[in-house]
Amino acid sequence: MIIPVMADDAKLRHLVDTVTARTGYTRGIGVRVLSVAAGRVQLAVDRRPDLLQFNGYFHGGVVSGLADHAAGGAVSTALPAGQVGVTVDLHVNFLAPADGDSLIATAEAIQVGKTISVAKVEVAAEKGGERRICAVATATLRAVNLG
Amino acid sequence: MIIPVMADDAKLRHLVDTVTARTGYTRGIGVRVLSVAAGRVQLAVDRRPDLLQFNGYFHGGVVSGLADHAAGGAVSTALPAGQVGVTVDLHVNFLAPADGDSLIATAEAIQVGKTISVAKVEVAAEKGGERRICAVATATLRAVNLG
Amino acid sequence: MIIPVMADDAKLRHLVDTVTARTGYTRGIGVRVLSVAAGRVQLAVDRRPDLLQFNGYFHGGVVSGLADHAAGGAVSTALPAGQVGVTVDLHVNFLAPADGDSLIATAEAIQVGKTISVAKVEVAAEKGGERRICAVATATLRAVNLG
Amino acid sequence: MIIPVMADDAKLRHLVDTVTARTGYTRGIGVRVLSVAAGRVQLAVDRRPDLLQFNGYFHGGVVSGLADHAAGGAVSTALPAGQVGVTVDLHVNFLAPADGDSLIATAEAIQVGKTISVAKVEVAAEKGGERRICAVATATLRAVNLG
Repeated sequence: MIIPVMADDAKLRHLVDTVTARTGYTRGIGVRVLSVAAGRVQLAVDRRPDLLQFNGYFHGGVVSGLADHAAGGAVSTALPAGQVGVTVDLHVNFLAPADGDSLIATAEAIQVGKTISVAKVEVAAEKGGERRICAVATATLRAVNLG
Repeated sequence: MIIPVMADDAKLRHLVDTVTARTGYTRGIGVRVLSVAAGRVQLAVDRRPDLLQFNGYFHGGVVSGLADHAAGGAVSTALPAGQVGVTVDLHVNFLAPADGDSLIATAEAIQVGKTISVAKVEVAAEKGGERRICAVATATLRAVNLG
Repeated sequence: MIIPVMADDAKLRHLVDTVTARTGYTRGIGVRVLSVAAGRVQLAVDRRPDLLQFNGYFHGGVVSGLADHAAGGAVSTALPAGQVGVTVDLHVNFLAPADGDSLIATAEAIQVGKTISVAKVEVAAEKGGERRICAVATATLRAVNLG
Repeated sequence: MIIPVMADDAKLRHLVDTVTARTGYTRGIGVRVLSVAAGRVQLAVDRRPDLLQFNGYFHGGVVSGLADHAAGGAVSTALPAGQVGVTVDLHVNFLAPADGDSLIATAEAIQVGKTISVAKVEVAAEKGGERRICAVATATLRAVNLG
């Protein structure tokens, strides 16, 4: 017997894994997919010298890029099959230094519409096993049909 | 004879060059400093597979990261010596595909205050010698004292 | 016997009530203070023809104004006595028509710092006893000393 | 002889005048239409006690509401006839106290698309004949068909 929800999540997981692996940028910064459900995605990226600000914290560009990709995942997994979300605008509030061994972004679609969807994202810095929110973001995305 | 404005700009240029070269992230994505004046900075980054979205355009994370760094440069060159701007929040509107051989971000400080400054940024994609605006951003920064 | 938390909340309630009543704008649109705690404020405004968009929903300006005031309350009640938060920037995502008899904004301070604080706000439209989120907002505020 | 551009602008002017007059909110705060062209609108609102913050400056809600309406006008006059722009998100940076006898918002459509458009807005406070920028805003709008 196949439990439908697990089947769906596996498909969604495959979608996010595939996009993350095929996208030069996310492969380049080493995005790891932690979990995927419809409308909810959690991603991580690990500390590396070329991802840091001069003060040793993760750079705002990495925080923003990870948040953007997570928002795209959250919305794309909530859209009908064959559609993905493309970011129209992204707003990031940097709340604390992104000081840690890895960044973890948790994105959730808070509205899914025919043309416009919105996701919110929390980004935490993990250090010595403890997570601290270092940024929150909101992204507006437009649904586009794939090939 | 030394022309004061040139002397100042040379110092500011040196500041932005140094920060850009010493910051792992900006060195990593290959940020080039095109021009620097008090409150105004122009930066570029060239196309590379690890900076792209799966569709072949520059990834939103790179657009955002370049805009963030440019905003920081525009504000830091407008602040009193010994202070730099740290981004508090960043809002990016993606207007068109970032389709080109390089991205060029032009940032301008539109308000410089004792605690808060604001910069606006235009990001253009250059392709075959033509530039097309692909994103605009607004960043709010906080002035912090250096070491 | 006086329970300290209640005493504090009563003071904070008084602060928000007073500012809301003395501010021409919030008195003008009829803001009601529903609840106040340190770092958390809930406000409402009731439907009136001069607060509506041409389609009969609450106007985005009212949604934004209520969110702004709620964010100010959430941050001001979390700051040390004698300081209030002044909005530096406000970002509002309109998720659904603000269709209802009243708007209810719930704001929470998610970061409180010496110079910069951040609040997030949810705005719901209440219609026939049911509440539906119609907007979310994020506000960045600067702490200023009163008088 | 009728000059086409004037004829078009007159139609656009009529559109913005009509929407402004029929909308409870904009009539309520007394929005005046200063100028209208395709993709560009300038509006004003005059100082009144019920539009002010407790410190005597225009309230952020009024600045935001005027910016929102101006952005809607700029995009709607740039869209094909029969379509108007509905705000999806609004980001306002408050740069200086909105201290003046009137607020003047100048909005310009910087991107007009089939589904998504973007407008930027400058809001100035006019005092004793002098104008000073007190806020900038960016709005993302969705095109909807009328009637």
